[in-house]
Amino acid sequence: MYVFKTADTIITKVGIASEIGEHLSQLKQHVQKALLLTQPALQKSGAVEKVVASLNQAGVSVDVTTDVEPEPTLSNIETVYQATLNVTDYDVLIGLGGGSILDTTKLLSVMKTNDMSLDEMLGSDQVKQPGIPTVLIPTTSGTGAEVTPNAIVTLPEKELKIGVVSSYLLPNLVLIDAALTTGLPKPITAATGMDAFTHALESYISNKANPISDMFALEAIRLISANIETAYFNGGNIEARERMLIGSMYGGMALTAAGTAAVHAMAYPLGGKYKIAHGVANSMLLPHVTQFNMDAIETRLATVAEPMGIKKENQDEKEMAQAVVDRIVELTKILEIPQDLSAYGVQDSAIESMAVAALDVKRLMDNNPKQLTKEDVKAIYGKLLA
Amino acid sequence: MYVFKTADTIITKVGIASEIGEHLSQLKQHVQKALLLTQPALQKSGAVEKVVASLNQAGVSVDVTTDVEPEPTLSNIETVYQATLNVTDYDVLIGLGGGSILDTTKLLSVMKTNDMSLDEMLGSDQVKQPGIPTVLIPTTSGTGAEVTPNAIVTLPEKELKIGVVSSYLLPNLVLIDAALTTGLPKPITAATGMDAFTHALESYISNKANPISDMFALEAIRLISANIETAYFNGGNIEARERMLIGSMYGGMALTAAGTAAVHAMAYPLGGKYKIAHGVANSMLLPHVTQFNMDAIETRLATVAEPMGIKKENQDEKEMAQAVVDRIVELTKILEIPQDLSAYGVQDSAIESMAVAALDVKRLMDNNPKQLTKEDVKAIYGKLLA
Repeated sequence: MYVFKTADTIITKVGIASEIGEHLSQLKQHVQKALLLTQPALQKSGAVEKVVASLNQAGVSVDVTTDVEPEPTLSNIETVYQATLNVTDYDVLIGLGGGSILDTTKLLSVMKTNDMSLDEMLGSDQVKQPGIPTVLIPTTSGTGAEVTPNAIVTLPEKELKIGVVSSYLLPNLVLIDAALTTGLPKPITAATGMDAFTHALESYISNKANPISDMFALEAIRLISANIETAYFNGGNIEARERMLIGSMYGGMALTAAGTAAVHAMAYPLGGKYKIAHGVANSMLLPHVTQFNMDAIETRLATVAEPMGIKKENQDEKEMAQAVVDRIVELTKILEIPQDLSAYGVQDSAIESMAVAALDVKRLMDNNPKQLTKEDVKAIYGKLLA
Repeated sequence: MYVFKTADTIITKVGIASEIGEHLSQLKQHVQKALLLTQPALQKSGAVEKVVASLNQAGVSVDVTTDVEPEPTLSNIETVYQATLNVTDYDVLIGLGGGSILDTTKLLSVMKTNDMSLDEMLGSDQVKQPGIPTVLIPTTSGTGAEVTPNAIVTLPEKELKIGVVSSYLLPNLVLIDAALTTGLPKPITAATGMDAFTHALESYISNKANPISDMFALEAIRLISANIETAYFNGGNIEARERMLIGSMYGGMALTAAGTAAVHAMAYPLGGKYKIAHGVANSMLLPHVTQFNMDAIETRLATVAEPMGIKKENQDEKEMAQAVVDRIVELTKILEIPQDLSAYGVQDSAIESMAVAALDVKRLMDNNPKQLTKEDVKAIYGKLLA
């Protein structure tokens, strides 16, 4: 059995964030008051001003908060809730930002309508009621958070990140606007782009892969492979930026339908304890975990050569599969993805507990096509501490 | 600007229709009383009994109607409404059948909640309110009606078919169950399968084609091309049947995102006046309209060779594009699609008024990559009267 479920409405157009007021009719209810969650860099860039202006012109008053922290903790999210939704009634929540902003917007929406604490929502299918309407506007092409039913919460006291998974987190409206991503710094373009690639590749080799997730996964791989270097080296290229956004959205749809696997499980401890951004952690791990999985996924991996644009005549399956891994390693180098965990303060002595924590993310480890022992996990982390 | 919007939840599983009661929680409301719209053949096959049994076991009482006619007229739909929803309150409407049943289910849903006549709903975006929840279960792999915001109404007095187009027609839940299609007669497998192929191909060459519609269109073409002959000659092959269902659903998603074109415009008069089934009319017209469009779509058509599985080395673009048309003609013959309109009572003298009616479907003619004059339309109809 496989399930497809996504955002109610997705609209793609360069510049659409600055016209948001014209599209609120999609929400099927009259909007008078909105809360906009965003981040300081988008205030500086002028993006927030344009969104607010369009909303005001449509007769919507807007409160803006930039209090959501990157990779937010449970207590940060609760603090933002207390300062906003607990005080004021909003008709709609708008998230304009990266994955942390979008995830938090999704969570605040259901916190308002469900009579339960955020702590009680952690895990799968705990949320009981639909939230208030949400509009999500991604400003990185990475997480695909605009189309996933997941939101990640950091629990610093437990040194881990944990997901809230509920179809009630899916937004009502998604606006895909490449004009918002042309100014992304190179390291963010690289890490978020490879994060999106990871979503697609892990979904494609996941034990839960199916014809629905495969279509999104392969198209994401095709779009990202063809555009990530242009987006990185020539950030102003609006076509490449739009294709990266659509690719990362498809990556989100793929992972929603099939789930991710060991890369994501192993990235969680890196984020929880060492604050390594989700996209960076995934990008670092991807080549090593894929090489580890090789003998279990050779056939599937070989079929990825074509959408990656590296298929050659007269290669056998084994050669094509290895070419895919080699190309991922090459991309990691071209895009200057960090490959050294010690730069983030990770020490050899931490590997044991990180491995235990990663194996504890059973929801994702169970999707991996090859079972990992603790020694396997430690060996992979070890490659990033050489 | 391009928009993606589909059914809230789509679940694919062989046998799921017989387990429908377990999946009603997707509707986010308690269901006590359901109306099931279906067709006599599905009562005979036992499918209706299984669906009703599963609903009853979940505590849902069910009324069943088989009063919807194939390619229903406005007055037939109104009659069914008066006999059912106007008398009884239902929590959910379930459509189990081909495109006519699914479209009517969508219409009855909004007729209940909108204070307007069906006549007033004709056209685009006239419906004002969401309908009562709907579950759609396609039993042919053709229309993709389970994921389109369109419903087609026949107006016999005007000798035409006209669409109601509204995002409020999109269903809440779609169940894709290949077990329902293994018994489809060969002519229906052929006509509905080529109808689905037409949706995909017309969306792909539509003036409104975009990266979202292209993905669905090409994947639909891939799935249908690889499975339609197996489904036709070996109807019990459940994998081929499931892929045909998914392919036809993707065809529906593609046409929702991009719109269809001249084939569909020209099929309308054939359905409206001569009662030629929608799938048959599209399948008859497809090769001829595609050949007519050729010089405007050569590049795009050439890229369809690969997903159709007919790409050869050392072919230039022109050869590949022609190979696609030739293959469509060949499929039409293999699948024994009728090629003679006179068998349906169409006479030479009718071509003039049919051409006028087809050109009047501007919404679709405007999507066609090459403009058709009345003489062009008449010439194409003429090929089916040779």
